[in-house]
Amino acid sequence: MSHAGNLWQDVERIRAQAPLVHNITNFVVMNTTANALLALGASPVMAHALEEARAMAGLASALVLNIGTLSRPWIAAMLEAGQEANRRGIPIVLDPVGAGATPFRTQTVQELLGALRVAVIRGNGSEIRALSYAEQATRGVDSRHAAEEALGAALKLAENRGCVVCASGATDLVVSAGRVIRVSNGHRMMARVTGLGCTATALIGAFVAVNAEPFQATAHAMAVMGIAGEIAAQRSAGPGSLQVNFLDALYLLRREDIDARLNIAED
Amino acid sequence: MSHAGNLWQDVERIRAQAPLVHNITNFVVMNTTANALLALGASPVMAHALEEARAMAGLASALVLNIGTLSRPWIAAMLEAGQEANRRGIPIVLDPVGAGATPFRTQTVQELLGALRVAVIRGNGSEIRALSYAEQATRGVDSRHAAEEALGAALKLAENRGCVVCASGATDLVVSAGRVIRVSNGHRMMARVTGLGCTATALIGAFVAVNAEPFQATAHAMAVMGIAGEIAAQRSAGPGSLQVNFLDALYLLRREDIDARLNIAED
Amino acid sequence: MSHAGNLWQDVERIRAQAPLVHNITNFVVMNTTANALLALGASPVMAHALEEARAMAGLASALVLNIGTLSRPWIAAMLEAGQEANRRGIPIVLDPVGAGATPFRTQTVQELLGALRVAVIRGNGSEIRALSYAEQATRGVDSRHAAEEALGAALKLAENRGCVVCASGATDLVVSAGRVIRVSNGHRMMARVTGLGCTATALIGAFVAVNAEPFQATAHAMAVMGIAGEIAAQRSAGPGSLQVNFLDALYLLRREDIDARLNIAED
Repeated sequence: MSHAGNLWQDVERIRAQAPLVHNITNFVVMNTTANALLALGASPVMAHALEEARAMAGLASALVLNIGTLSRPWIAAMLEAGQEANRRGIPIVLDPVGAGATPFRTQTVQELLGALRVAVIRGNGSEIRALSYAEQATRGVDSRHAAEEALGAALKLAENRGCVVCASGATDLVVSAGRVIRVSNGHRMMARVTGLGCTATALIGAFVAVNAEPFQATAHAMAVMGIAGEIAAQRSAGPGSLQVNFLDALYLLRREDIDARLNIAED
Repeated sequence: MSHAGNLWQDVERIRAQAPLVHNITNFVVMNTTANALLALGASPVMAHALEEARAMAGLASALVLNIGTLSRPWIAAMLEAGQEANRRGIPIVLDPVGAGATPFRTQTVQELLGALRVAVIRGNGSEIRALSYAEQATRGVDSRHAAEEALGAALKLAENRGCVVCASGATDLVVSAGRVIRVSNGHRMMARVTGLGCTATALIGAFVAVNAEPFQATAHAMAVMGIAGEIAAQRSAGPGSLQVNFLDALYLLRREDIDARLNIAED
Repeated sequence: MSHAGNLWQDVERIRAQAPLVHNITNFVVMNTTANALLALGASPVMAHALEEARAMAGLASALVLNIGTLSRPWIAAMLEAGQEANRRGIPIVLDPVGAGATPFRTQTVQELLGALRVAVIRGNGSEIRALSYAEQATRGVDSRHAAEEALGAALKLAENRGCVVCASGATDLVVSAGRVIRVSNGHRMMARVTGLGCTATALIGAFVAVNAEPFQATAHAMAVMGIAGEIAAQRSAGPGSLQVNFLDALYLLRREDIDARLNIAED
């Protein structure tokens, strides 16, 4: 099947199955990522109490961990929910928001990656570089461009952790075991809406819930993000209307939009 | 006075008095429920610290307790605020988000209902069924349809707790002491916007603040939710614009909209 | 340079430098204030853990402290971040949400003001009056009008604390060391959108990050808030669309808008 065909199959599965995606995520994006999951056709639940982390994760088809407004009690809940997800074979998607900005964040991501088998890590280039260098205790110095550097870092991190890594940017890099998919959909105005990176991570949760191949599922999620963003940007004067139109575009997404816009390539 | 006349009187009172509604609610909907209360004409306050729960509740005309992103410290604040509300005769509206999904949630609702006199409980059919069965330690087995089952569960719960119960759905059931009002306003796209159930609960808070009869006030709030949703859906391509237009519709709501659209019946 | 010229210079600096504004703020407005900062051109970060408060504040060009959904652990993080900001000469902007409503809030603001050198305090008239009277242990009784009373209170508070004070309202009062600027931009529908006061405070953070004169920077931020609100209100049926159009207006703001609309005067 074509890339577009495979992607569309995932969208139809999400709409038909409405998979439950359990999010332990940050305060900034709780509302907007729940809305994006609903607009796409998935069923979001946000729950972070240690008392119910295990029970809620056990009901879900995917678990999304996002360290955006991190604090100690939330880490405990992430570990508890993550262990239950691992036990049951429920895929985990991790968003290392702000890794590299403070030691607390970088260390927390390493703690989570040490304790849990994660299916996908999605961050921006600088977060992925920070994580990759933290693992190697050395900083890449030979890369001439940030984008190249992000690719090298993503490949290393994917190899070390045995997972899919997505370094998002103007072109999103999705890597796994030496393979690389580049997704070039999206619109620059998206960077002016808070939490669209976190939304991408949440949507990856919906795609890995219906597609057992996380490498492909992640590329599909990033393409759907980008395509919905392109459609929305065409109608939007600024980031306020972009946020509204993005949800409408996810809800209205048709196979023809994918066929006309999908910009994806495997190296 | 007609249903429409009674309802409109409540809306006018809310707009004139701007009653303070104290919300101890979840992170997902704090912004959107505050905006809905403001658009309707009420004055929302969100405050959850144990240190001020009593003082804040004492200033309010209604208290809304919502367990959506529950954690232990918030339960303590709910109890403290609720006891102060009971002491002063301020009506409490409870939203048992996710009751039945995890034991932590079901038990927390029972703890709250054990400690506080609640005026109104509003949940979806499955939450109301979960609460009602938890009380009876037995599950209803003779109901052929979920809607019928929700009605039976709501009637039992209302009787046990001596309060109004609303089980919302395509048709909202509002019950109290054996009486039943059915509200059939609303639009199916509303289910694709996160937290509109929580918004309904918050608006019930505004209506019970100005109407001493919680059975009627709850039906009015559900009708206003549904009518604003219908007006908004007519102008909305998807759930992103629905959320925006819903707030505008609440703000612009006129007596003529009520007269033209109200779809309410008492059994 | 004219007021408009000075203001526009600040906007251009924010757009060019994208200053990092660290917010320890409330749950209701985390998403909307981050979006307003992004729409204007600044870089928001929301982080409240004690473990990283110092590290994050040290990276920022301004620190915004907002007590909207206050709790004890957040106060500790505010103190830690604030002390680091003071050590490094990073300006602090404080929003005393709800000061006067409960003793917990009034006392927390006094604790913060006792421990930290704050560049700007922005609140509504009643919050500024509550703070000013708390300092004097006496209530102003000779003022005939709330607006006059707010001016007197703001002048006293600014004198006591050696900072800029903004008491916002239909006309925003910006005072410092006996000087007064009045900003009369804005639209009454803005009061129906939750957290636009908090948004003003966050934007002051962006302006003090690029303008070393906090008195002027605060007046500029309030004028930009008001002008973006006026532009948005012209296109908005209600507060739902106002919130969306406000972000678009911030993003699209042009020098001509400032020239045509700026309504500012120094006493």
